[in-house]
Amino acid sequence: MTAPQVNAHEGLPDDRDNVRLWLRLLTCTRIIEKSVKRGFADEYNSTLPRFDVMAALERRPEGMTMGQLSKALLVSNGNVTGVVQVLVRDRYVSLTPSPTDGRSSVARLTRLGRDHFAVLAEAHRNWVETMLAGLGREDRSQLYQSLGVLKDLLADNGETE
Amino acid sequence: MTAPQVNAHEGLPDDRDNVRLWLRLLTCTRIIEKSVKRGFADEYNSTLPRFDVMAALERRPEGMTMGQLSKALLVSNGNVTGVVQVLVRDRYVSLTPSPTDGRSSVARLTRLGRDHFAVLAEAHRNWVETMLAGLGREDRSQLYQSLGVLKDLLADNGETE
Repeated sequence: MTAPQVNAHEGLPDDRDNVRLWLRLLTCTRIIEKSVKRGFADEYNSTLPRFDVMAALERRPEGMTMGQLSKALLVSNGNVTGVVQVLVRDRYVSLTPSPTDGRSSVARLTRLGRDHFAVLAEAHRNWVETMLAGLGREDRSQLYQSLGVLKDLLADNGETE
Repeated sequence: MTAPQVNAHEGLPDDRDNVRLWLRLLTCTRIIEKSVKRGFADEYNSTLPRFDVMAALERRPEGMTMGQLSKALLVSNGNVTGVVQVLVRDRYVSLTPSPTDGRSSVARLTRLGRDHFAVLAEAHRNWVETMLAGLGREDRSQLYQSLGVLKDLLADNGETE
């Protein structure tokens, strides 16, 4: 939500300032995220968190517990549980008791869920491609590499824990 | 919440893929955001949206309406109103009727709010500096410039509307 702060300083770019770098990162993410959220809401009556949970489950056919989903998606257990409940209600996800831990449940995409996710993923790809189509090949490559450096740094810092 | 997808493809970087670029951007943002959120919650019993509203008001001593805050922060009017209500309750923000539109209210930071924001902003700066301290000067500069290209592209696309 701090987006415009960056704009306010447009005349005074300062590439030594980590806070400005963070605000610029946040601004770009929020602009794209807002557009994707609106697309899911308007065209599919869905949400980004539901898409994220389905995307995680799509990659793990053996299923994931709430704890695994929470860790993978960097959100709280409570938030994940609420999202999964909606997906179960819509028959996109099934829940079965964990064979190794009777207190936890394993979430899996149903056949209906896999089909639905394929449709959402295609729409998501189209929105992102449209938004980023104007990036030149070198700019895209450079940004991808630079974000890789940042991601590795954050991982080394243990910020994902 | 789509963070780990990027990691799963670590061995196959593809800098032509806009979706991968977007997921990498989202991953970095979420990692930093999660850490900042936790800091506000644990150390100041506050939240990132409250900080964002106060940051916007700090830059506009003449005050902002809910509509202006909503637009500036890329979030819905309803979300902004809820956050402002908490800040009013805590006496960090005052609400007065708009002189030009009696139906809307103008939010302003109180003296107490400005003092509180200064403390939060200092903590925020320290967290971000700590997380990003390991970025080399060239990496930081490159990332800042690349994100600037992306931000301009998104603005040209009208994605902020």
